[in-house]
Amino acid sequence: MNETIMAAARERAAGHRRRFDLRFEAYFAALPERLDTTPLSRFTPRCLELLRDLSLRGGKRLRVALLYEAARLVTTDPVPGLAEAALSIELLQTHGLVHDDIIDDAPLRRGGPSTYYAYRREFPDADGTALGLALLAGDLAAFLSARVLLEADVPAELCREMLRIQLDAGAETVTGQIADLERDLLPLPDEEFLHGVCEYKSTRYSVLAPLRLGLLAAGEDLSAHDARLRRYATLVGIGGQLRDDYLDLFGDEAATGKSTGADLRAGRRSYAVTALLAAADGPRRAVVESALGDPDRPAGTLEQVRALARSLGVDARLRSDLRRCAEAAGAEAAGWRPYWRAEAVAFFEGLPLTNVLPGG
Amino acid sequence: MNETIMAAARERAAGHRRRFDLRFEAYFAALPERLDTTPLSRFTPRCLELLRDLSLRGGKRLRVALLYEAARLVTTDPVPGLAEAALSIELLQTHGLVHDDIIDDAPLRRGGPSTYYAYRREFPDADGTALGLALLAGDLAAFLSARVLLEADVPAELCREMLRIQLDAGAETVTGQIADLERDLLPLPDEEFLHGVCEYKSTRYSVLAPLRLGLLAAGEDLSAHDARLRRYATLVGIGGQLRDDYLDLFGDEAATGKSTGADLRAGRRSYAVTALLAAADGPRRAVVESALGDPDRPAGTLEQVRALARSLGVDARLRSDLRRCAEAAGAEAAGWRPYWRAEAVAFFEGLPLTNVLPGG
Repeated sequence: MNETIMAAARERAAGHRRRFDLRFEAYFAALPERLDTTPLSRFTPRCLELLRDLSLRGGKRLRVALLYEAARLVTTDPVPGLAEAALSIELLQTHGLVHDDIIDDAPLRRGGPSTYYAYRREFPDADGTALGLALLAGDLAAFLSARVLLEADVPAELCREMLRIQLDAGAETVTGQIADLERDLLPLPDEEFLHGVCEYKSTRYSVLAPLRLGLLAAGEDLSAHDARLRRYATLVGIGGQLRDDYLDLFGDEAATGKSTGADLRAGRRSYAVTALLAAADGPRRAVVESALGDPDRPAGTLEQVRALARSLGVDARLRSDLRRCAEAAGAEAAGWRPYWRAEAVAFFEGLPLTNVLPGG
Repeated sequence: MNETIMAAARERAAGHRRRFDLRFEAYFAALPERLDTTPLSRFTPRCLELLRDLSLRGGKRLRVALLYEAARLVTTDPVPGLAEAALSIELLQTHGLVHDDIIDDAPLRRGGPSTYYAYRREFPDADGTALGLALLAGDLAAFLSARVLLEADVPAELCREMLRIQLDAGAETVTGQIADLERDLLPLPDEEFLHGVCEYKSTRYSVLAPLRLGLLAAGEDLSAHDARLRRYATLVGIGGQLRDDYLDLFGDEAATGKSTGADLRAGRRSYAVTALLAAADGPRRAVVESALGDPDRPAGTLEQVRALARSLGVDARLRSDLRRCAEAAGAEAAGWRPYWRAEAVAFFEGLPLTNVLPGG
């Protein structure tokens, strides 16, 4: 049973991704015409190109799938505004990635250079210029993310509500990122703090906003369903973060497209790092602490920490936390049947399970 | 005559400023209640505090005056939406200042520490954290700037148009800032390039958007007046930039609240620096070029460059360019009498003249 609904959810998500990627490409192809810029500048078209490259380079577009399937909870008719909402969601994501990679000083993103490092390569002797251009590229993506919603062919009242969702999500995400930096200065943050960071830093814009936008565009009354949407979003958000944090420590660079061990190197108190700190005692904890936040740590440190984590069972525990989270999210979605279309409900049941790691 | 309309314009602007400053303070007082954040974070309230400090620390609020007086071109009745438009305009300004001060590595702003340097002082051993928090503070201001327009008690259609103006202005400003960084890598940018930077980097959001927002909220049909608004805005924008660039080289730190000579130190090809480069030849140009972009230049260099600029008449030329620009803007506004209320037209005639420097 689980296998069937997971396979169906994966296939549906892949279809949304394919259709969206074509639309995202068309958006960027038309953008130079739609953005009023000073014609003499060569840096501005370059900025648009870098935003385009990063934006089209991928991601699973799960946010887009959540959006379209949320609308399908209500109707299978075409829903005006969804296309623009999807662009807005992914441009907000681009904004966040560009700025995150400045904050984290991260060279890699989605299997290519981060925007910051692309600029650093172009301005090897002017890191200030590279930083400035990357910062501005991220700012531009934020404005474009909100602006694209204005192009939706929907009543002005609906447009305003969609903007409210996205702008709230944008602001809340920033506060989550702030709390994330705070977390990394705490010796051992408790679970409540980690969940708070996850909720604001990623759940709100990645899960809750797409659900709300899809339902709203399809004509649903959001206030009647607020609590159940939040419960589901929080579980999916924590699951996604557990997976990311797990893969950062235990994953494979070729598969994730990001530098493995980045959390450890940057001293980030991720779910994985925090679980490891909590599990290790005495000399073993000292090994982890000495590796934390040391960008120049010797080769082999990551392997050593990883082996230690495995010997303490941290990897298995994270995988089982993730599985329980996914099952709870699936059960929450199963409870949606009285309100919404069964076929789309099945997608929301299956999707969290696709996140579960082998052995979870 | 000029003295009279200038004095009247100054007084009106001061009134708008006083009223706005109270409203801005009330906005920040209510903000913690209106922004959903993770309750455990102490960094988030601190971020709001720093945004508040910078936002309330001043500026002449000329954008706010332009907004309110633009509405008065049409009506003296209270106009719904203006209060939120004013907050949006100044929050967009805060966003730009916070990010500019990261890009320029500027310690001072409005007579106090820049947000970046405030954080650097709080995290003396973690410059990455300080940079990240400042970047996020600027991002938050951008989302808040758009979001506050949603609170306007106006029809959704008008709200959408106001958002369009502000989001276009936000995006165009970013492209102007990109072109600004490009400008500073050109040996001697031509006037057309400088004007392009000025138009996109500052005129659009500082002059044109406030004019449009005020007129639109008051019920005016913008398309009928587009060309005349643009002409006026461009002249006022260039005048304002000429003044800023003049004061950066020739001004007094205590009066401007910014570090004097910052453009020179950072290698910025401002109107003043470019005029000086164009006027100086041979060994004198070499003096300027060696001072340009040298953050560690010896004490006294600024004085030397300043004296050189004065001996070449660069200061007098900039003042007279500024005066001509202001007169042309005033003349443009005088041509608005057939369309709009004479009393408000007089404000727009007088305002540019208040920018003129003694001896201009």
